[in-house]
Amino acid sequence: MKELTALEAAHLIAAGQLTSETVVRSCLERIKALEASVQAWEHLDADEAIAQARLADRSNIRGPLHGVPLAIKDVIDTMDMPTAYGSRIYRGHRPASDATCVALARATGAIILGKTVTTEFGLGPSGKTRNPHNPAHTPGGSSSGSAAAVGCGMVPWAFGTQTWGSVIRPASFCGIVGYKPTYGKADVTGIKTLAGGLDTLGLLARSVADVGLLASVVTGGRIAAETLPQTPRIGFLDTSPLGSLDPATQNLLAETVRRLSQGGAQIHDVPSPASMASWPEILGLVYRWEMVQAFAWERLYRRDEFQPETRQAFERCERSATPKSYEVGLARANEARAGCASLFTDCDVLLVPAAVGEAPEGFESTGDARFNGVWSMLQLPCLTLPMGRGGAGLPIGLQLVGSRGEDARLLRAACFVEACLAGTRLTSKSTPPSIRHSP
Amino acid sequence: MKELTALEAAHLIAAGQLTSETVVRSCLERIKALEASVQAWEHLDADEAIAQARLADRSNIRGPLHGVPLAIKDVIDTMDMPTAYGSRIYRGHRPASDATCVALARATGAIILGKTVTTEFGLGPSGKTRNPHNPAHTPGGSSSGSAAAVGCGMVPWAFGTQTWGSVIRPASFCGIVGYKPTYGKADVTGIKTLAGGLDTLGLLARSVADVGLLASVVTGGRIAAETLPQTPRIGFLDTSPLGSLDPATQNLLAETVRRLSQGGAQIHDVPSPASMASWPEILGLVYRWEMVQAFAWERLYRRDEFQPETRQAFERCERSATPKSYEVGLARANEARAGCASLFTDCDVLLVPAAVGEAPEGFESTGDARFNGVWSMLQLPCLTLPMGRGGAGLPIGLQLVGSRGEDARLLRAACFVEACLAGTRLTSKSTPPSIRHSP
Repeated sequence: MKELTALEAAHLIAAGQLTSETVVRSCLERIKALEASVQAWEHLDADEAIAQARLADRSNIRGPLHGVPLAIKDVIDTMDMPTAYGSRIYRGHRPASDATCVALARATGAIILGKTVTTEFGLGPSGKTRNPHNPAHTPGGSSSGSAAAVGCGMVPWAFGTQTWGSVIRPASFCGIVGYKPTYGKADVTGIKTLAGGLDTLGLLARSVADVGLLASVVTGGRIAAETLPQTPRIGFLDTSPLGSLDPATQNLLAETVRRLSQGGAQIHDVPSPASMASWPEILGLVYRWEMVQAFAWERLYRRDEFQPETRQAFERCERSATPKSYEVGLARANEARAGCASLFTDCDVLLVPAAVGEAPEGFESTGDARFNGVWSMLQLPCLTLPMGRGGAGLPIGLQLVGSRGEDARLLRAACFVEACLAGTRLTSKSTPPSIRHSP
Repeated sequence: MKELTALEAAHLIAAGQLTSETVVRSCLERIKALEASVQAWEHLDADEAIAQARLADRSNIRGPLHGVPLAIKDVIDTMDMPTAYGSRIYRGHRPASDATCVALARATGAIILGKTVTTEFGLGPSGKTRNPHNPAHTPGGSSSGSAAAVGCGMVPWAFGTQTWGSVIRPASFCGIVGYKPTYGKADVTGIKTLAGGLDTLGLLARSVADVGLLASVVTGGRIAAETLPQTPRIGFLDTSPLGSLDPATQNLLAETVRRLSQGGAQIHDVPSPASMASWPEILGLVYRWEMVQAFAWERLYRRDEFQPETRQAFERCERSATPKSYEVGLARANEARAGCASLFTDCDVLLVPAAVGEAPEGFESTGDARFNGVWSMLQLPCLTLPMGRGGAGLPIGLQLVGSRGEDARLLRAACFVEACLAGTRLTSKSTPPSIRHSP
């Protein structure tokens, strides 16, 4: 069961070949077996999950996610489960309503399995969650629990969020597909604000088709559920101004380029734009001001309850963020956002690293986000999928970056890349389930 | 006491000539006298307000709002007062934290006096609040309670919110100053989302200097507390493509132009841009999709608890809002936002009507918002201040619209207009209080 993608499970449930209860029980067994070492969950009520599944099995109203369990990062509001944003400030907090993404998933049939671990407010050091491929390593973050739970088959898909690199990096570290839509595509009502001009809902799953289906649900159809691969024009972007790569990642990227080219993709090298070296600084200028504003209440009235690392992060930002620095940052960000359109003149997507390398050992940090934050600053859609393993035997993902608003094109290209790397062009895994709508 | 502006009160408190308790008690007396007819408050705890004031009077830590009472529209989260968003769905809801604007106001010394009436989620018909100038008329909305409370001296200033015309119109109807900053200037964390790309915090007070000071607090200093009038270049914009004006409003605008010109302002006529007639349609395309997404949970799971008019509004939007219509609306909005910069080539601000005329009789609606929503769609800063009274004896405001991000320039121009219409150029009312910061 743990090998099923969400779409496969949805397909079998829709066809009457599998019950939601069976799928949920299978997830719960997997969790029971692995949670002691992985620690992906902040809240999980097995009886409640089984009750939801039984209700789904008896219901004639069937949406595209019918009966399939979904995990929710704990920075996203759920009206029937505690939502603490990873912080003791909000311990036991019960939101009055579901976030938009949760309500839409529920209404299309998803079983809300539980809440997954996040670092405090999406900041701070790695939490209790371990990398499912090696418990001595971080799973990445801040969507730590979502990435780890999907990565070890506890749940077929999950919601995360990305402000800097909180979806792409943990997905790469845990060997799964992670997708951050274009900024603004998915409504963020009910997601705890970290930096309003950067925050996006993120999707984590084990196939590109899965994140495509989930994207269509959470954007109300703004992103079509793309499942057909299309041979893309790929720009292999030189990201060296952002920093250097682990040799294993560099080798895997080169090998990936060869395989994609053999598979029929048009690939050409894209030089780094002159402005690239300044992107991290621009991101910092925007991020620091926005997060300081968004957490006015917590900073002013609950400062003593932050984890020490979180408090230090806020204090660094408070010292450096000024109205002037933010105006400058915003102006430069808008310029960079407009300017980056030219990167896509000759290609559908850019191929870039998802991270420096494998998940680092230890839990002081969730890993280096230098290959993530710049795309968040540019508000572009991006997607990671596994391309191999590094020296420590841990997964390494590639990253595809799409043009602003061209999420469907990014997903089609990602379907191609996924199929090509799997040595096949189109499998039944990519076929959407036949969806029955009750009259 | 009811004639004091917030700045005057702050000044006298800072000088030790008035206590916060005296100011708060004066507000409470005024509320006691008028609340039965005006009905501006959703939540008010007199004992709690006096306790806050006494604490302020004993405190050595003094911010720029020290001891001055402030009212909060009930779509804005307060951790110590119920926050129901005007809806029985959220009756008795207690947020876990303060909205950013509330936390910033509190931390600079404001006394949070209570929560003011809003229409349900900022939609729907006029609520229980009456126009303080004539209880048979609407106060406007959706910031109904904030505008009415400030309009009859129950409190010197208040927070409102504007998505379509929810600050400028009620402020005009209630004879006060209303100000909506440039979209994005003030952080909206903790304000119930209505339409994410349009929502802004709004400020209501009895002087331009007051909203200027409050703006500097809620934007963390991004807008300077402007108090000095500056002789502006004013463009008198032809808004006839948006609809026609009540004759009294038209006459008052013409008279205002004469007085401002005599006062030294450079005024020239600005023809309507060719695109103006399409602005309301663009606004509708953006608004309808965004509000449908933002209220996914309430629409899907609490539909029966909406007021009938609110439910009908959602159902109209659900029928007409599609991903395609939103993409078209967003593209056209971005084009209009970029294009409107040329309106300000030869002027600092535009002079336009704030509303068709006086507050209409009855409570079926909060009045016509045709002269408001277009500026919200363009994300421009705007400000209303009283220019006279109409045939029914009710106030009529003018509206000044500033260039994107040029809030300080708008406030300087508004100081000039206010002084000019008052027959004076600069009074002590415009002088900021000397602010003592404790060591």
